[in-house]
Amino acid sequence: MAESTNMRLRLPLLCIILEVILIILFGTLVEYNDDTHAMLWNENRTDSATRNDHENEFYYRYPSFQDVHVMIFVGFGFLMTFLQRYGFSSVGFNFLIAAFSLQWATLMQGFFHGLHHGKIHVGVTSMINADFCTGSVLISFGAVLGKTSPVQLLVMAIFEVTLFAVNEFILLSILGINDAGGSMTIHTFGAYFGLMVTRVLYRPNLDKSKHRNSSVYHSDLFAMIGTIYLWMFWPSFNSAITNYGDPQHRTAMNTYYSLAACTLATFAFSALVNPEGKLDMVHIQNAALAGGVAVGTAGEMMLTAFGAMIVGFLAGTISYHVCCCFIQDTCGIHNLHGMPGVLGAVVGAVTAALASPDVYGHGLQRVFADVETGKWNPQSRGGFQAISLAVTLGMALFGGLITGFILKLPIYGAPPDTHCFEDGLYWE
Amino acid sequence: MAESTNMRLRLPLLCIILEVILIILFGTLVEYNDDTHAMLWNENRTDSATRNDHENEFYYRYPSFQDVHVMIFVGFGFLMTFLQRYGFSSVGFNFLIAAFSLQWATLMQGFFHGLHHGKIHVGVTSMINADFCTGSVLISFGAVLGKTSPVQLLVMAIFEVTLFAVNEFILLSILGINDAGGSMTIHTFGAYFGLMVTRVLYRPNLDKSKHRNSSVYHSDLFAMIGTIYLWMFWPSFNSAITNYGDPQHRTAMNTYYSLAACTLATFAFSALVNPEGKLDMVHIQNAALAGGVAVGTAGEMMLTAFGAMIVGFLAGTISYHVCCCFIQDTCGIHNLHGMPGVLGAVVGAVTAALASPDVYGHGLQRVFADVETGKWNPQSRGGFQAISLAVTLGMALFGGLITGFILKLPIYGAPPDTHCFEDGLYWE
Amino acid sequence: MAESTNMRLRLPLLCIILEVILIILFGTLVEYNDDTHAMLWNENRTDSATRNDHENEFYYRYPSFQDVHVMIFVGFGFLMTFLQRYGFSSVGFNFLIAAFSLQWATLMQGFFHGLHHGKIHVGVTSMINADFCTGSVLISFGAVLGKTSPVQLLVMAIFEVTLFAVNEFILLSILGINDAGGSMTIHTFGAYFGLMVTRVLYRPNLDKSKHRNSSVYHSDLFAMIGTIYLWMFWPSFNSAITNYGDPQHRTAMNTYYSLAACTLATFAFSALVNPEGKLDMVHIQNAALAGGVAVGTAGEMMLTAFGAMIVGFLAGTISYHVCCCFIQDTCGIHNLHGMPGVLGAVVGAVTAALASPDVYGHGLQRVFADVETGKWNPQSRGGFQAISLAVTLGMALFGGLITGFILKLPIYGAPPDTHCFEDGLYWE
Repeated sequence: MAESTNMRLRLPLLCIILEVILIILFGTLVEYNDDTHAMLWNENRTDSATRNDHENEFYYRYPSFQDVHVMIFVGFGFLMTFLQRYGFSSVGFNFLIAAFSLQWATLMQGFFHGLHHGKIHVGVTSMINADFCTGSVLISFGAVLGKTSPVQLLVMAIFEVTLFAVNEFILLSILGINDAGGSMTIHTFGAYFGLMVTRVLYRPNLDKSKHRNSSVYHSDLFAMIGTIYLWMFWPSFNSAITNYGDPQHRTAMNTYYSLAACTLATFAFSALVNPEGKLDMVHIQNAALAGGVAVGTAGEMMLTAFGAMIVGFLAGTISYHVCCCFIQDTCGIHNLHGMPGVLGAVVGAVTAALASPDVYGHGLQRVFADVETGKWNPQSRGGFQAISLAVTLGMALFGGLITGFILKLPIYGAPPDTHCFEDGLYWE
Repeated sequence: MAESTNMRLRLPLLCIILEVILIILFGTLVEYNDDTHAMLWNENRTDSATRNDHENEFYYRYPSFQDVHVMIFVGFGFLMTFLQRYGFSSVGFNFLIAAFSLQWATLMQGFFHGLHHGKIHVGVTSMINADFCTGSVLISFGAVLGKTSPVQLLVMAIFEVTLFAVNEFILLSILGINDAGGSMTIHTFGAYFGLMVTRVLYRPNLDKSKHRNSSVYHSDLFAMIGTIYLWMFWPSFNSAITNYGDPQHRTAMNTYYSLAACTLATFAFSALVNPEGKLDMVHIQNAALAGGVAVGTAGEMMLTAFGAMIVGFLAGTISYHVCCCFIQDTCGIHNLHGMPGVLGAVVGAVTAALASPDVYGHGLQRVFADVETGKWNPQSRGGFQAISLAVTLGMALFGGLITGFILKLPIYGAPPDTHCFEDGLYWE
Repeated sequence: MAESTNMRLRLPLLCIILEVILIILFGTLVEYNDDTHAMLWNENRTDSATRNDHENEFYYRYPSFQDVHVMIFVGFGFLMTFLQRYGFSSVGFNFLIAAFSLQWATLMQGFFHGLHHGKIHVGVTSMINADFCTGSVLISFGAVLGKTSPVQLLVMAIFEVTLFAVNEFILLSILGINDAGGSMTIHTFGAYFGLMVTRVLYRPNLDKSKHRNSSVYHSDLFAMIGTIYLWMFWPSFNSAITNYGDPQHRTAMNTYYSLAACTLATFAFSALVNPEGKLDMVHIQNAALAGGVAVGTAGEMMLTAFGAMIVGFLAGTISYHVCCCFIQDTCGIHNLHGMPGVLGAVVGAVTAALASPDVYGHGLQRVFADVETGKWNPQSRGGFQAISLAVTLGMALFGGLITGFILKLPIYGAPPDTHCFEDGLYWE
């Protein structure tokens, strides 16, 4: 007999224990940063006649934060509603694990690279970073969609957020590389972590639920809400934590052009691969977004609109070529996040290696942090970017492997093979 | 025989008369404020070389305004589409009464606390305030959803907006209390006003329409659009009219953490109260939002993320405990706005009473307006906050009672008991 | 036999050729502007101690850009999902032609009025302008919705974007008129261009597809998502490229009040024209938006909230009076964009003719560009505004005529009369 899928004790117990732990840790570790603390912000203000509240990071970052927030909760949530009988779980579990992950990520990221005298300082930038980390978990969720219980998902989030923070620390703090839009830290990591988890959780008899693993007319329209919101706000996503001024402006614009070019490639190839020349909603829902992933690293550099469009076009093209059926990747995250993420890492490495003061002028140090230290060298920059990709792949695959085996324990109320992709199991 | 529900004369007549009155009053009373008037804004600019257009309140407030605007029209509108045959009315009537209320609120709020030499000055802050007042009307709409004609709803809005403005004037201008996110002025007021109205309009034979008072699969997904937008933008809602700088930043962040904690509590208790441990969409759609309501007053104070999470967790917990069936509260606004609003008022009173210059430094006067006057005293502050809750409850219940009886007159084309929760009555 | 509607070669070929041409032209012609270029932005920064990144146009324009972007992709896309079996095409083709048009528009608009030493400079303002031009194409799409293949739509976009840029150049650069929200350049142009195209493509036997040219319950709810987003963000649309400070603030506010008044008029007349007094979703979805169109020109002027409400109310009223059935205007763009656009042009001409330094003070030159040159004369200003309307109508009708005949060639895989308004033709 299959294990019971009753969540009555498991889910409440886990949620409450986790939230209590979070609250205790926040109480002991987390403090307002200089821009959110009443005393600190008003101490630091200049005494000049001009009011300088507009310099609070809130006004630079908050609109981007809200766009990212929409991507996390509406974008990812609705993107996964394409399944005919899994809309409640797609939006609902997305909601649950995102709400947990953003709190846990605040702690983990703060612990690894935000400690000030033993305290984690929080503000709008940490909120964006927490949402970014959450995005990575939701990417992995796409791979195991329909085959996992909410308890499993929360357990996965605990491990993935932690490893994400470690990987991010190695890349950004130790190797000192650029990855503002997270081609590596978010997309490559989230994709390969999730792919490994779903591989370990492989179900030989999943075809018993095959009839529910498809869309109906209106579920595809709901999914398009997710797609379009992700597509529109991707410029905000990639630019959300770049430096103020030209880097943020440039990143948004590069992403905009990359996505536009990617969309034309997507429609072209979607019609081309179909014998009758018909477009496929699955392609439009996913491949059109690859352009945003693929400029996640290089977006803040002087990639030019021209370069961004080439990258976007390529990203839209490669999003068709690998079938991941054998690892049961429900949402096709390998196509949407995996390969475009790797492409983005490579493009970032090349663009970094080609950087020069002739092109960037005084703006060089605002993109590459180590210029100010005098240790900057474009070729080694490019090399570190490439090493980072390898580190990320290693961390993701190894982490996914361990996490997958932990999730295999028969204690989480996972759905039986006959009831995958079915809301009725966990929803009234 | 039931009264006719034909709207052909009633609705056009009421809409046109109201709009003509609004236009005349706007023509005689409303003026651009210093930041929107071509002459005034350009007069007041400093003569220094630095351009100071960025100091126009537009750039501080407009992104928040748009988020609030989305909550009012998409958030509230779609939240109520959960009923299987009432989606047109939910979104459509929400649209109508919101469009009316924001105009009427501009006048009423301006009359009570925005008069300058006999003129009402308008700008983005008055637009946010008008949207806030509209939110209160839409909360009440949730209680009477499905049982009222659009004419009744407009009449309700006329009275509720007026009383809202009076209550807001007493709280903010006379008692001088803090309530930036409107735990009291918006949520408590709107909820208890609406509950009293629906109590007065009690229909003993409503079970004749019982079969339509439930959701279908896709109507629940539409409702989740509303929920998620409300949830995401609540940080913008609570921070929209706080002071610039640290208060706005802090409010957004406190709300973010309160909502995240509330969401975990919601999923926990939703599974716990169900015999089979299944989650209930009604809970997720509503209770997850209580965390935003409950930090509406204290959000701008030095509540800390820790405090916000405790409040959010509590709010998610209490949102299950009272059944309001006997007053026919269609959307369960008592759970979503009533109790969390009261909780928010209490939290606000306590947090205000605990405020001290040791914690806030020079920022104290930016949160508590009376510090500058030298009359500040935290304990009496806390007391006034508590008194405000009592005033709000009194105003809401009394106002709802009167309005309920006015709405009982058989002249508005209310739906018969057999045709409640049915779009076909008012829609082609 | 009808021509084949197979898109397998036609669509990929056209998409890839277009994108390759775009990429080549971007590579040779497009450069970062002063606010996005790493070297230029950091060169131009003042040497004073105060950081001035907040003066980057990104922070003034990007939130508006994102709102406009949502209108283009979600607003227009979902507004057209009202048809029962055409949701994939509405959102999908909207997505495709918008992604193409914004790239092509960047080049065309840059070529006509953005050249700097032979190069087109791009930044957030050019992104908004490209989205505006795209909006015009999507308006025309509304007229031919359901009766055209994606290849036809792309060909239409090529011509329409080009003519849009020419018309915009004549109006803004030669005649020097005001049209920040595009009553003329966007709405009037897009509407009459589309109406002429659909007239030329007239299908005498379209009633063979009549049964699909209507909505079902949930398709109307999807369409309301489009309507509400357009309605909410219209203030951002009209104010997106006005001057910083008071003009942007004032435009947003005027639009807000115009839309609110328009909504009441819409509900009034929708109930009035129905024998049973029932509201019609088609009216609500469309007419409520006319208020935004009608203040597209005058919005940035000292129209006052009073004036804006009168204009909005009128716009809501006239949106019912002309039936365009004989030209097969699927979405009723004549009502939503055509007549309100003309009304907006007239209101703009009158408001410009009434402008005076007594009202605008030093702000006059920030609204009317020619004040600084000393050539300003309100009556001739008004005259030029009126001439612009005539030019726009001429360009739109003539351009639509030519384009219509080009689209009549039997090489694009247009749907047969029996399969209009049907997703199955082009979608898997």
